[in-house]
Amino acid sequence: LQSKLPTVGTTIFSQMSQLAAEHQAINLSQGFPDFPSNPRLIELLSAAARHGLNQYAPMPGVAELRQQIAVLVQDCYQRQLCAEQHITVTSGATEALFVAIQALVRPGDEVIVFDPAYDSYQPAVELAGGFTVHVPLLPPLYQVDWTQLEKQISKKTRLIIVNSPHNPTGAVFSHQDWLSLQALVLKHRLYCISDEVYEHLVFDDRPKLSANQYPELAERSYIVSSFGKTFHVTGWKLGYAVASAELTAEFRKIHQYVTFSSFTPAQHAIAVLLREQPEEVRGLAAFYQQKRDLFRQALAGSAWSLLPCRGSYFQLADYSAFSDLDDVAFCHWLTREHKVAAIPLSVFYRQPPSQRIIRFCFAKEPQTLTRATEILCQLS
Amino acid sequence: LQSKLPTVGTTIFSQMSQLAAEHQAINLSQGFPDFPSNPRLIELLSAAARHGLNQYAPMPGVAELRQQIAVLVQDCYQRQLCAEQHITVTSGATEALFVAIQALVRPGDEVIVFDPAYDSYQPAVELAGGFTVHVPLLPPLYQVDWTQLEKQISKKTRLIIVNSPHNPTGAVFSHQDWLSLQALVLKHRLYCISDEVYEHLVFDDRPKLSANQYPELAERSYIVSSFGKTFHVTGWKLGYAVASAELTAEFRKIHQYVTFSSFTPAQHAIAVLLREQPEEVRGLAAFYQQKRDLFRQALAGSAWSLLPCRGSYFQLADYSAFSDLDDVAFCHWLTREHKVAAIPLSVFYRQPPSQRIIRFCFAKEPQTLTRATEILCQLS
Ligand SMILES: CSCCC(=O)C(=O)O
Ligand SMILES: CSCCC(=O)C(=O)O
Repeated sequence: LQSKLPTVGTTIFSQMSQLAAEHQAINLSQGFPDFPSNPRLIELLSAAARHGLNQYAPMPGVAELRQQIAVLVQDCYQRQLCAEQHITVTSGATEALFVAIQALVRPGDEVIVFDPAYDSYQPAVELAGGFTVHVPLLPPLYQVDWTQLEKQISKKTRLIIVNSPHNPTGAVFSHQDWLSLQALVLKHRLYCISDEVYEHLVFDDRPKLSANQYPELAERSYIVSSFGKTFHVTGWKLGYAVASAELTAEFRKIHQYVTFSSFTPAQHAIAVLLREQPEEVRGLAAFYQQKRDLFRQALAGSAWSLLPCRGSYFQLADYSAFSDLDDVAFCHWLTREHKVAAIPLSVFYRQPPSQRIIRFCFAKEPQTLTRATEILCQLS
Repeated sequence: LQSKLPTVGTTIFSQMSQLAAEHQAINLSQGFPDFPSNPRLIELLSAAARHGLNQYAPMPGVAELRQQIAVLVQDCYQRQLCAEQHITVTSGATEALFVAIQALVRPGDEVIVFDPAYDSYQPAVELAGGFTVHVPLLPPLYQVDWTQLEKQISKKTRLIIVNSPHNPTGAVFSHQDWLSLQALVLKHRLYCISDEVYEHLVFDDRPKLSANQYPELAERSYIVSSFGKTFHVTGWKLGYAVASAELTAEFRKIHQYVTFSSFTPAQHAIAVLLREQPEEVRGLAAFYQQKRDLFRQALAGSAWSLLPCRGSYFQLADYSAFSDLDDVAFCHWLTREHKVAAIPLSVFYRQPPSQRIIRFCFAKEPQTLTRATEILCQLS
């Protein structure tokens, strides 16, 4: 069989989580929490299933959940959405990203993504017959040079995929970034996919900004988020896409044939939790900032050099002071020999610069972070 | 925005379920049960979530579930599978079908489907850049004329999508059908997607047959099934694809970027139920045959003419004896004026013949079927 994705292997996240399991390593690779979600959420899930809410949800998502998403977006970004026309619940942000890409990208289209970028964008674009054009982010803050980016826009450019807070770098767009993006999207009549799965994880009192706050940008965007990240249940695979009525109609045409609908009891459970405990979302940035700070402080003074982390639950760390291994070899060595798993940064690049940086996930219990950082400090 | 699927609207299933809700009609349209699943399954779901199994499942599916699927396929069809290499859990059979189609179909490829066929195949093929070629099924048994079918095979034919038991007609392949299919697939070096979501619902002591029993066919097939149908939890969106190691590798390359993984607690719950209560699956055909018989007997002697139903949970009914409306208009009228919702058969066709037939779902409580058939009898 001729492969539709000849250059693709198993995602790095599966590879490293499996390697971590084989070596009983502390798994700071794939991004997921090692602590329980709100117990009320589990209760609500059981209640929904017990009450018989186990048949197909409506294709665009359970109405109460979409209503609560509208309330959340209003609270966070003062944008008024119509649940019926603008919001579609998906089987994780992954499905939302995949469907949005299929809705927009036609054979031959070019799509601008950052270098580095999350690994699912490029294969989804290629399956649609498009090509990704990779625009470097500039370390140490992994910022966008919008003037450089504009030079990459051609007649064929259809779409730009942005991601703030950014995985894997932890970079966060400023107001100026959003304005620059909006200006380019309008000027070149592009579309935008704004991957905002870490939207609530912005640290150091920086403003929580979203494509939802830039109306002319929002009009041409799919804005994607994830309850898995927000409620510490990545295995629930529940996300959503916000878009104009026109873009939503196209999205649903495809979503209905990709998964049709998502796990019904979880939709009801999250709808109720959002209504009962809206403060849970508000407290999320502080909750994760503590974890980031614990992790960073524990490595302060070591030979690890930590890059800035303004958002997301990932921390980049440079180990060039004490090892010459390339980052893939280094991550394998670290997992095998020292029982800490991380993700090599190079796998997120089209053109990896020569650097020695890896990504740690700090969405972990304090004791997990302490155990891991004790090991990491001894290395250097 | 130029539509990627210009001819597609909202699926008929969403349309009719919504119309049924608006008119408080008995909903025999979209295929889902109105009775609860095994209460043990709900307990197991709650237990898995309470035990903290809420993070990403492995991308190919929870190992215990894949193991139990291997046992099930062995029990039903005496085929030995390797859970690691041959089985991938998906977010419903819909995702499995979508991913299998993306894995196989390249721009310009032709795909043979039946006329009528389930509605998701064609848009999935078109998103991959392929074209569907529709081969008529011959009423009243909706059989395949394999000689006619072979005439539709061209140099460009890549794939044939079969579906037995067949939705919407309730037709079931005979051993001879499977042999004919296998011969054509081998002779023309095609691939096959065998949509077997109603695999356990074969009535009147006919043998339960599957692509799994035809090794040379199976080698070139994705075989798709659904726990939603088998365990009366269509909203759990849990299905799977069985394929050779080579086809599975290609499938997972795409699956990992479409949904990555499926709702974790449900995977654990179904794994345990399959182990604890294997007889549940064995009893399924008898369970649904009773419902079919109840429905058919209640309409016997009425002006409705029922077509044969050998499998699935759908019953076709011809109303031409008492109405001249086309089937779409008839279904709307039946829902609005008489509070029973069904699906017009024509929507499943590329080229609907001139006929007046609609599809009822009989996966309902006896009292639901009785209430509905009382209304239906009065019409005629
Ligand atoms: C879908 S597995 C990847 C999880 C994640 O977002 C990450 O680790 O970057
Ligand atoms: C995914 S909704 C459709 C359910 C179904 O299989 C049917 O009604 O035919």
